[in-house]
Amino acid sequence: MRKSIRGGDLITLADVSRDAIVEVLDVAESFVEVNQRSIKKVPTLKGRVVASLFYEESTRTRLSFETAAKRLSADVLSLAVASSSVKKGESLRDTISTITALGIDAVVMRHMASGAPWQVSRVVPSIRVINAGDGQHQHPTQGLLDAFTIRQVLAERAGSRGSETGSELFHGLRILIVGDIRHSRVARSDIAAYLALGAVVTVCAPPTLLPADVSSWGVELSTDFEAALAQADVVGLLRLQVERGSGAFVPSLREFTSLYGLTAERERLLQPHALVMHPGPMNRGVEIDSSVADGSHAVIERQVSNGVPVRMAVLYLTVAGGEGDMS
Amino acid sequence: MRKSIRGGDLITLADVSRDAIVEVLDVAESFVEVNQRSIKKVPTLKGRVVASLFYEESTRTRLSFETAAKRLSADVLSLAVASSSVKKGESLRDTISTITALGIDAVVMRHMASGAPWQVSRVVPSIRVINAGDGQHQHPTQGLLDAFTIRQVLAERAGSRGSETGSELFHGLRILIVGDIRHSRVARSDIAAYLALGAVVTVCAPPTLLPADVSSWGVELSTDFEAALAQADVVGLLRLQVERGSGAFVPSLREFTSLYGLTAERERLLQPHALVMHPGPMNRGVEIDSSVADGSHAVIERQVSNGVPVRMAVLYLTVAGGEGDMS
Amino acid sequence: MRKSIRGGDLITLADVSRDAIVEVLDVAESFVEVNQRSIKKVPTLKGRVVASLFYEESTRTRLSFETAAKRLSADVLSLAVASSSVKKGESLRDTISTITALGIDAVVMRHMASGAPWQVSRVVPSIRVINAGDGQHQHPTQGLLDAFTIRQVLAERAGSRGSETGSELFHGLRILIVGDIRHSRVARSDIAAYLALGAVVTVCAPPTLLPADVSSWGVELSTDFEAALAQADVVGLLRLQVERGSGAFVPSLREFTSLYGLTAERERLLQPHALVMHPGPMNRGVEIDSSVADGSHAVIERQVSNGVPVRMAVLYLTVAGGEGDMS
Repeated sequence: MRKSIRGGDLITLADVSRDAIVEVLDVAESFVEVNQRSIKKVPTLKGRVVASLFYEESTRTRLSFETAAKRLSADVLSLAVASSSVKKGESLRDTISTITALGIDAVVMRHMASGAPWQVSRVVPSIRVINAGDGQHQHPTQGLLDAFTIRQVLAERAGSRGSETGSELFHGLRILIVGDIRHSRVARSDIAAYLALGAVVTVCAPPTLLPADVSSWGVELSTDFEAALAQADVVGLLRLQVERGSGAFVPSLREFTSLYGLTAERERLLQPHALVMHPGPMNRGVEIDSSVADGSHAVIERQVSNGVPVRMAVLYLTVAGGEGDMS
Repeated sequence: MRKSIRGGDLITLADVSRDAIVEVLDVAESFVEVNQRSIKKVPTLKGRVVASLFYEESTRTRLSFETAAKRLSADVLSLAVASSSVKKGESLRDTISTITALGIDAVVMRHMASGAPWQVSRVVPSIRVINAGDGQHQHPTQGLLDAFTIRQVLAERAGSRGSETGSELFHGLRILIVGDIRHSRVARSDIAAYLALGAVVTVCAPPTLLPADVSSWGVELSTDFEAALAQADVVGLLRLQVERGSGAFVPSLREFTSLYGLTAERERLLQPHALVMHPGPMNRGVEIDSSVADGSHAVIERQVSNGVPVRMAVLYLTVAGGEGDMS
Repeated sequence: MRKSIRGGDLITLADVSRDAIVEVLDVAESFVEVNQRSIKKVPTLKGRVVASLFYEESTRTRLSFETAAKRLSADVLSLAVASSSVKKGESLRDTISTITALGIDAVVMRHMASGAPWQVSRVVPSIRVINAGDGQHQHPTQGLLDAFTIRQVLAERAGSRGSETGSELFHGLRILIVGDIRHSRVARSDIAAYLALGAVVTVCAPPTLLPADVSSWGVELSTDFEAALAQADVVGLLRLQVERGSGAFVPSLREFTSLYGLTAERERLLQPHALVMHPGPMNRGVEIDSSVADGSHAVIERQVSNGVPVRMAVLYLTVAGGEGDMS
């Protein structure tokens, strides 16, 4: 287990220790303040070039990373790969060699193939690789920002800063993850972060949307969604990834919603303090009712907001090795 | 009627007073000088983030806004929405929530649906929304830059700066707007600006390309294009928006040109001082002959040039509330 | 022949003198050092706006130019033309007029039509036009970076800096260019640069992939690929541009590879000091074996790396006229 991501890559949360996760969260907390200034900019990565290389498009994640990089004063090159040389049949390896040879400091990479960022990180040891989501494998910054959001809310309620006591508050915290676990890189990264921090994680899904190896994940399985909802401190919903074929695994969207959707009725089962999370983009009316998404349990916008300081922290730690001016 | 757009949004010119329009033009005039320097940059919006969110692509308007924002030292996030999460079925509202949560200061938005920027401005009161063209509704910065261009030329001819006397020169000015009025957001914004400044506006179009409610617009109707040309101080042409279906409203392009095109022959009917304007992109040979577009009456390139200082003024007034270093 | 590109455009290397080429290479050499700093940024083009206008997409070339412009502190506007007003039928001329009117200082342009950048440079004399590849005509910065790469390696072996003695080392140097000469703008630019610097250039290709007028190019023709390989100091491979129709000119890729591919077997024919170059993106297994691409003769990644300082030099000389702070 890595004790820190300083100066390294961020491909998966599965090999990152509790200490390394807490370090990211603590650094992110110091960047929250930067994001509340009217001039939201620090010189930390001035003169560094960060390329965002998205083989799958994503509004949220790409903008979040690019905003983070610009707030650190990095130059950002944005590459819509779908329309690039890749069409000419260039290999991933040659695309990356090119980018390396250009003298770029870091690549933020999303790819439809699980493992692609890891392959890249082996080929180009001199540049930092940050996984922005690969196939059904991992989406580590999502896991970090979800953990950060939970810690932030818990610490606020406890009247402290997250960096002081928040991480302790995960011990015994009951987190329920619902929906298309099988195809979800978000679930895999969330679970890695939550388990490392000491939470108790339960998953609940139609049998066809559970991964075959879930018994080795260290999580509890629930077949009673409503009972699990009533016990949860945190409910993490997942996007039903119709575009990745999960449609084939549920009889119909309506059926899924009736069995596993967080409807307004089921929201009433929640404990008053329970948090509802969703990584976006939401299918309102499918995995979550619109009123729940906009209701008092939801911290969904806060997840997006926290994406920026968490990604600033990841860029700072990996690219600058955690050194240099942070303010 | 709003007396100023300082600190507010810019969705339509229909609710903006003469004073508010004159304020934008005066501020724009001070930015013209910045655009003539070799280093065309002021620190006014340093550390602010402006997202351009174009649901319809547009070379001219997007580049003009992005150039304006960069000259004010803002960071610019450019989002080609066609290829983003919208494809995954995300609602406009959720896309905007995301952008807001990222801590972006302003959204420059073009959308095919009339009213979309207005909806956004209601959902996210904390960020500035600038309409870069919505459906057939409004394109307010185009109206402002067209008014600015007319004022600039008239003031030059009068030997003064626009900010001193130019706005007075609109009184009684005869402005003719020709072509596809019905589908044109440019026409709606131009007319709002011209009327507010005291001009007399005449429209001329095939009956099928006049909006049903034109009688309430406060403009004169002409059915004699050539007589109207001979009386006009300014002729504003409009793009025949074939892609929005106006093709269905004219028998053929050739027919349209023969009746309503500003051909080289008709150019001779113009008064020597008359100005010819077009918002671009032009269909050369349809609504305007190539020789007219490049002729002595045309101020079409000047319109494009003025787009940058006018949009700098709009960003300065809305995002910075008209405060902070302008030079 | 132009003695310098200072303050001018860069459309073709065919009209550029040896002195002008050497000047670019010397300036590029001073920028190599900038690219080795941790803060890879100089204020040379601060406040200038460079638009990259790619009618054909290209990972490598667009990123290389944009990186170069950003390292010179220019603002970069990136225009994916395929999705722009061009779709609305706007002429190239009007697109360019627009860009000029925006106050942009330079356009880096790739276009599928030979001669398009030249047309643009005639229409807009006030902005600098840099050809980033036009049809089958020219790709001048590729020619310059290839010459720079050869000079750099030769100078290193001679124990000197390229700017001192490197350019002399081209005299009598035997450079072999192999493959689809007919459709290659890279070949045309490389050959112009190499001949100007005094090299002896041989081309080798299937007769169907030789241009009709090759006899006037000042190069030698070889029909014995393997003999030519054994004599070459430098072997320049070309991408088989299947997407431009060269597939119709060779019976099959396998046939092409068996006759003209630089396979691992043929690599053994090379002199020990011979360099192997490729402009990318490579078709591994077609014009070059993977082991050769990654082998000891290859300087392919170095070509990509050198693209940035060479393009910095071209932007500095054309846009800033070779004046202003370089460090």
